[in-house]
Amino acid sequence: MASSGNKITHGAVANNAEWRQELEKVPGLPASYVLSKTLVFKPKTAKSQTATLIVAFALETTQTSSSVVAKVADAKDARLATSDAIEAALGVIPADVSALTVTESNAASVQVVLDLKITEEKNLIAIHPSKSSETVFMTSRDIQTYLEKTGVKLTIHDFSAGSIAESSKVEAKKVVTKAPKKESKIEGAALIGIDIDKELDFPGWYQQVLTKGDMLDYYDVSGCYILKPWSYSIWETIQKWFDSKIKAMGVENCYFPMFVSSKVLEREKDHIEGFAPEVAWVTKAGKNDLEDPIAIRPTSETVMYPYYAKWIRSHRDLPLRLNQWNSVVRWEFKHPQPFLRTREFLWQEGHTAHLTPDSANEEVLQILEYYAGVYEELLAVPVMRGRKTEKEKFAGGLFTTTVEGYIPTTGRGIQGATSHCLGQNFSKMFGITVEDPSAREGEKKEPVFVWQNSWGLSTRVIGVMTMIHGDNKGLVLPPRVAQYNVVIVPVGINVKSTEGERQQLYKAIEKIATTLEKAGVRVKVDNRDTYSPGWKFNNWELKGVPLRLEYGPGEAKGNFVTTARRDTGVKDKIPIPEIAEKVPALLETIQKDLYTKADKAFKSHIKKVTDWNEFVPALNDKNVVLIPHCLTEECEDEIKERSARKDDTDNTPEDARAPSMGAKSLCIPFDQPEGIVEGKTKCANCDRYADSWCLFGRKTNFTFLLDHNLNLDVTTDGRLIRYASQEATDRGRREKEIIF
Amino acid sequence: MASSGNKITHGAVANNAEWRQELEKVPGLPASYVLSKTLVFKPKTAKSQTATLIVAFALETTQTSSSVVAKVADAKDARLATSDAIEAALGVIPADVSALTVTESNAASVQVVLDLKITEEKNLIAIHPSKSSETVFMTSRDIQTYLEKTGVKLTIHDFSAGSIAESSKVEAKKVVTKAPKKESKIEGAALIGIDIDKELDFPGWYQQVLTKGDMLDYYDVSGCYILKPWSYSIWETIQKWFDSKIKAMGVENCYFPMFVSSKVLEREKDHIEGFAPEVAWVTKAGKNDLEDPIAIRPTSETVMYPYYAKWIRSHRDLPLRLNQWNSVVRWEFKHPQPFLRTREFLWQEGHTAHLTPDSANEEVLQILEYYAGVYEELLAVPVMRGRKTEKEKFAGGLFTTTVEGYIPTTGRGIQGATSHCLGQNFSKMFGITVEDPSAREGEKKEPVFVWQNSWGLSTRVIGVMTMIHGDNKGLVLPPRVAQYNVVIVPVGINVKSTEGERQQLYKAIEKIATTLEKAGVRVKVDNRDTYSPGWKFNNWELKGVPLRLEYGPGEAKGNFVTTARRDTGVKDKIPIPEIAEKVPALLETIQKDLYTKADKAFKSHIKKVTDWNEFVPALNDKNVVLIPHCLTEECEDEIKERSARKDDTDNTPEDARAPSMGAKSLCIPFDQPEGIVEGKTKCANCDRYADSWCLFGRKTNFTFLLDHNLNLDVTTDGRLIRYASQEATDRGRREKEIIF
Repeated sequence: MASSGNKITHGAVANNAEWRQELEKVPGLPASYVLSKTLVFKPKTAKSQTATLIVAFALETTQTSSSVVAKVADAKDARLATSDAIEAALGVIPADVSALTVTESNAASVQVVLDLKITEEKNLIAIHPSKSSETVFMTSRDIQTYLEKTGVKLTIHDFSAGSIAESSKVEAKKVVTKAPKKESKIEGAALIGIDIDKELDFPGWYQQVLTKGDMLDYYDVSGCYILKPWSYSIWETIQKWFDSKIKAMGVENCYFPMFVSSKVLEREKDHIEGFAPEVAWVTKAGKNDLEDPIAIRPTSETVMYPYYAKWIRSHRDLPLRLNQWNSVVRWEFKHPQPFLRTREFLWQEGHTAHLTPDSANEEVLQILEYYAGVYEELLAVPVMRGRKTEKEKFAGGLFTTTVEGYIPTTGRGIQGATSHCLGQNFSKMFGITVEDPSAREGEKKEPVFVWQNSWGLSTRVIGVMTMIHGDNKGLVLPPRVAQYNVVIVPVGINVKSTEGERQQLYKAIEKIATTLEKAGVRVKVDNRDTYSPGWKFNNWELKGVPLRLEYGPGEAKGNFVTTARRDTGVKDKIPIPEIAEKVPALLETIQKDLYTKADKAFKSHIKKVTDWNEFVPALNDKNVVLIPHCLTEECEDEIKERSARKDDTDNTPEDARAPSMGAKSLCIPFDQPEGIVEGKTKCANCDRYADSWCLFGRKTNFTFLLDHNLNLDVTTDGRLIRYASQEATDRGRREKEIIF
Repeated sequence: MASSGNKITHGAVANNAEWRQELEKVPGLPASYVLSKTLVFKPKTAKSQTATLIVAFALETTQTSSSVVAKVADAKDARLATSDAIEAALGVIPADVSALTVTESNAASVQVVLDLKITEEKNLIAIHPSKSSETVFMTSRDIQTYLEKTGVKLTIHDFSAGSIAESSKVEAKKVVTKAPKKESKIEGAALIGIDIDKELDFPGWYQQVLTKGDMLDYYDVSGCYILKPWSYSIWETIQKWFDSKIKAMGVENCYFPMFVSSKVLEREKDHIEGFAPEVAWVTKAGKNDLEDPIAIRPTSETVMYPYYAKWIRSHRDLPLRLNQWNSVVRWEFKHPQPFLRTREFLWQEGHTAHLTPDSANEEVLQILEYYAGVYEELLAVPVMRGRKTEKEKFAGGLFTTTVEGYIPTTGRGIQGATSHCLGQNFSKMFGITVEDPSAREGEKKEPVFVWQNSWGLSTRVIGVMTMIHGDNKGLVLPPRVAQYNVVIVPVGINVKSTEGERQQLYKAIEKIATTLEKAGVRVKVDNRDTYSPGWKFNNWELKGVPLRLEYGPGEAKGNFVTTARRDTGVKDKIPIPEIAEKVPALLETIQKDLYTKADKAFKSHIKKVTDWNEFVPALNDKNVVLIPHCLTEECEDEIKERSARKDDTDNTPEDARAPSMGAKSLCIPFDQPEGIVEGKTKCANCDRYADSWCLFGRKTNFTFLLDHNLNLDVTTDGRLIRYASQEATDRGRREKEIIF
């Protein structure tokens, strides 16, 4: 691949997955862009007639079913066109077709249905200039202008509005009046509201819900994000809870430096192999080159263990249990994603040394239980406890235990947190020994290597929580972790209200707040005069506050507060004298209901499968799949290979068209279903006997993150399209992330 | 300067301060070494006789008064020899003399008094090979061997033992039997006890008290240290206290990335100028060079303020008060020092934005008061509150407030923590504005720049506390911050005790511990069977636990506990029924007494001086000095220049011989003494009128930190001294720090 001028040349691609892969190899692409897709349909036509093909040009993420396209194009019963038909009409093979294939000369033989989202797209849009081995990036405006100039029949349609043909005209008008809408002068209006549907564009929704919900902001350095107080306070709650648990176990906190010398970093071969490509190196200080580059820790095993060797002198120093709350750096070159995969992230890492494997094992499981507790008790997120397969375990460790979650919207599993037993591998590498205390008096005391564990929980938990509970109104925070779990909004005050009435109301609200605070509720009173109650409702719903209390003249008269649950939207009343008791109880109900809902979604999507033929369809149905498995690495590789979805050819159903990684094992659940008979039950994939039920799923995580600073001059079909991204200039850079 | 072979060549030096400066410029020196000093004395002799000169060769830090040297050398009334006498006897000028100047040929005309500390020194010792522009590094053993071979009369003396001549012979014997002493097999003995006197070798003491007291360990990367739980728990206590204070003010915690793009870092010129030479740069990730190097934050003003500009849209968003608990990196090339100056350190940094200067100012002072609270209320360290001069204020800010401490042992001031008002400088640079809310209806609302503060408190507080309270038994921790503030040690159990008696005692102790824990005391019960009570006493004294309780058969019989205060050593009794009340009360007494003692030491060393002639002598007497000052930068520079102590020529009194930086201003105290009359009182240094009383002092901080991996072949006076540091090979590296 190569980048020549403004048109980027790469390997020919057959589908968007390959396209994406090719683009990722190209340095210096725009920081943010979206992929487009072009589908060509042929309406049912009498054989004597030449069919006018319908070119549907849409954002990759838009669902463009043939029936909707047909209705919009005012055609009967359209089907995906054959290669022959496409080549005959447009002169190119299907993989090369795009909106840019439409020219003045072929405009009469086609019509174009243009996705409204394309016309509204703020990012650059990647398009093939009639060649699948080439990409240009254009603004929505330029694409529309280009198409209009060809003279082709052009219909703009809002596919998200459903399948009613009539909507297309309405939506087309909408486009015309779009610009001023965004210029709304109402203060704060631009901030309010999620305008991306969680089900239809999960990555776009995730980005919006995090930024508009005030959880984080994008940062000047790629792959790094700012944790704003609204998310950081959740992390603080988690820290406090987990820290008290481990301290009760006898773990002590400490702080090791963030820098590691290369010599120490590379001491353990298997371990470092897993991290080496992502290690960030400091090579300069001020204007001076350092004699030896110094790494920033990707994790602290090799940072800490040389000192364990020094500090542990006798079995009486065991167990040694240290933990630190810190940040680590893993410089991933692709796919960063807020909370889930970032170049710097916050976590805790515990590192302990034990005399016996039993002592180490007991701790590994105890910690895993606390990790499950963070998810289940604090974040209302159900998780499955289990062990990782050999293939997926921590590099250099003995075995890894894990809590695994499930994202209903994507139907993918997600790793929650892991607790590793390192066995004696590191202690042998670093020489961490004690004299054998079981040696008899007078016998030579042989050195024995200690047993070690390491365990870590990161801010990714916040991302998982957001993905599971959030909805199209914004965040939904579980009461136990929300910075404020109740917001009180004064209502019913208007221009006719006297200052006295207003003050009386505020005073009553202050009293309610005080009562609740005494009952342990974290209350926010939103007294801002400049915003309407409706604006405030939306604002706090966006931020996910679990419970809203409304209080106005009506409530004052009836001596109650009106309650509105964020999770269900259900409104109710609580008499003022009962608030100290009933509000905390309601918060606990919300907490439980959130968990129950997520738990149902998870449980109903764990599919037990014993026949391979049911495996991929089950994955495609948004399930994680339990199969009897031989637990061999070879078989696991094969499952990944066999379950990858590689094509988006004409016959693939539209909704299964997104490219997918193959399935990988998530865990071997501790809680094993019955049904496996040793030496009898076969592995679902191979001829070996099954060892255990093993949970498989497709991976969550697929993201773009590139630079957005290109001005392009693109020659397509003899036309010069000058592109200068004003937005890019104005805003410096933006990031767009896409998750599969 | 240049390093050729194993002898290092540099500029000629007239004293140790210059020597040190020259060495610092040489790359690749040993990681740890100490400077030596050579003084040549001439005894009072009849004019007819040729005097045998006395060459005293000692560690730089050893006090070698002429009277002691004379007694040790069995000479009458020795005085420092004149240049002529030295040149006549040894053939070199005084600056070139060292132990290596003594050779077989001149051995008869001199005798050598060798500092016992030289013979015990584990580090390499820097010596001039009869040339002040050259340095070689030798082990104590090689120096002694060399001198013995010259045949010179050699006396080894322990100068720390006082001035009794008799001691020299005893000490000389000690040297002979020294080696086996260190090989003691008693478990843990090597760990126990500080063997460096705080008054005599403060840097050595500081290092020992921190490492042996379990506060920190030295680390593989220079300038970075490991905070062990014993010190980290102190930091956690401080965090908890300060965090609750600022949250009550409305400050929220957040987390910004540790990485900064160079573009953003360099936005504010004055500000970055102060940090640029110390910025660590990441230039590689895995095997790939980054397109642009990325800095690690030295502080977060420029990291955060672009986002303040984005987030602050209206005066209703003010004040914006964010804080983060994080680590920052300042890659200092010289003088790192545990807690006080480290390449990575932990701190909190608060960054706030206000509509008005009043709001900003009020906060700056409120935060400063909390910083004073950390020192005074938690760490029992008295501080002086004040404002920094223009010369010493934060680069890019409007004014800096500070709390300043005092280290009695060195007689130096030390900066405690600073709270800066940044004014509008950064808001203008980053465009942080709101519309003027005071504009009338209908008037054009002009943008106004916000007022900003930033404030930070780092782990240096732990270093300051250690230096002030610690003694020759080890750490002394104030009860409010000690991880355990009480340790209970069972006593009186011996081989004759039955298992029943032992269990009964342990049971009673458990009960005492439970009672105390309920009373809020953090108790450690030391039940380890393998250690004697005496060993435990020493161990916990080393670690600075404020109060020890002893409980044995005697105590059981009398129904009391024996108490032993760490700070005073005073022992007492408390009846068991009263412990829940009296132990916490005693801890509070200890806390107060520690503060009172430190406060007395500070107050008695603040010297008010109006006459310049008294200024330097007052500094030399270990004072910080209050003078009427004009507050001009020019005058401050002049004071620094005039008060620097540059020489250690023959006539300088021995105890003032250490090289010293000039005095700098510490603060303009808020609490101003009377006595300055505007337009009448003159500045103590110049002809201008005084503006305020200003506190000056010499700087704390002077340290070595270099690599220790040299094998040397040194030719001195025709002799080949082969030096291979076995210790360096065994231990990899060690660090030795010297503070002035």
